[in-house]
Amino acid sequence: MTEINIDQIRFDEKGLVPVITQSYYSGKVLMQAYANREAILKTVETGFATYYSRSRNELWIKGETSGNKQRVVDIRVDCDGDSVLYLVVDYGVACHTGKESCFYRDIDFKEKEKPDPYEILHALYKKIEE
Amino acid sequence: MTEINIDQIRFDEKGLVPVITQSYYSGKVLMQAYANREAILKTVETGFATYYSRSRNELWIKGETSGNKQRVVDIRVDCDGDSVLYLVVDYGVACHTGKESCFYRDIDFKEKEKPDPYEILHALYKKIEE
Repeated sequence: MTEINIDQIRFDEKGLVPVITQSYYSGKVLMQAYANREAILKTVETGFATYYSRSRNELWIKGETSGNKQRVVDIRVDCDGDSVLYLVVDYGVACHTGKESCFYRDIDFKEKEKPDPYEILHALYKKIEE
Repeated sequence: MTEINIDQIRFDEKGLVPVITQSYYSGKVLMQAYANREAILKTVETGFATYYSRSRNELWIKGETSGNKQRVVDIRVDCDGDSVLYLVVDYGVACHTGKESCFYRDIDFKEKEKPDPYEILHALYKKIEE
């Protein structure tokens, strides 16, 4: 992991960056929200996931009212600096619907079956080969 | 998983939606890009991850030039329909830098240690209790 500082995050014209929130234990993608510079700084300072609410136009400390806080273990930034990943230990659920993850719906499409079991062997082979 | 159709995705004022790409096997978040309606339809139709390139202003079939295609196993949509998750079997690397994931950098902050080992026991306890 290469360490960078907050100035290398590229916020958009509204001063926001998309934030993906992933559970540190389960690896599940829990939610996707947005942060401004202040939200990232607050996350760094408190260790708890803080976002910027686009609907309420204010800083949003996740779980401040629901109690479902997210302790941030790592703040990752993508290669071109315009996307952030919070790796969190979550106390409770991420979604306002009561589900663990906000991504509980999917699009129906024909290829949607799980990959052929042999494919995982191929993937393993490749991984070992590396 | 609740099945929905593409009309329930809420594209923004530019006709785009953020797409998070996660490896089906490793659970790693590989990249975050954007899709328009056409890109999602193309993904559904071909089973390969298709995005919309904001810099080139065109449809972007991942791996078309590099060969690092991503076969899509599931297309998930979040609770309010404004974020999409592609679960993929990836042939090769996701990042143009040659790394497996675009999120190979992180922000240095004091809380950045891994959680206390006892915490995972607490998390396990909670999971079993559910």
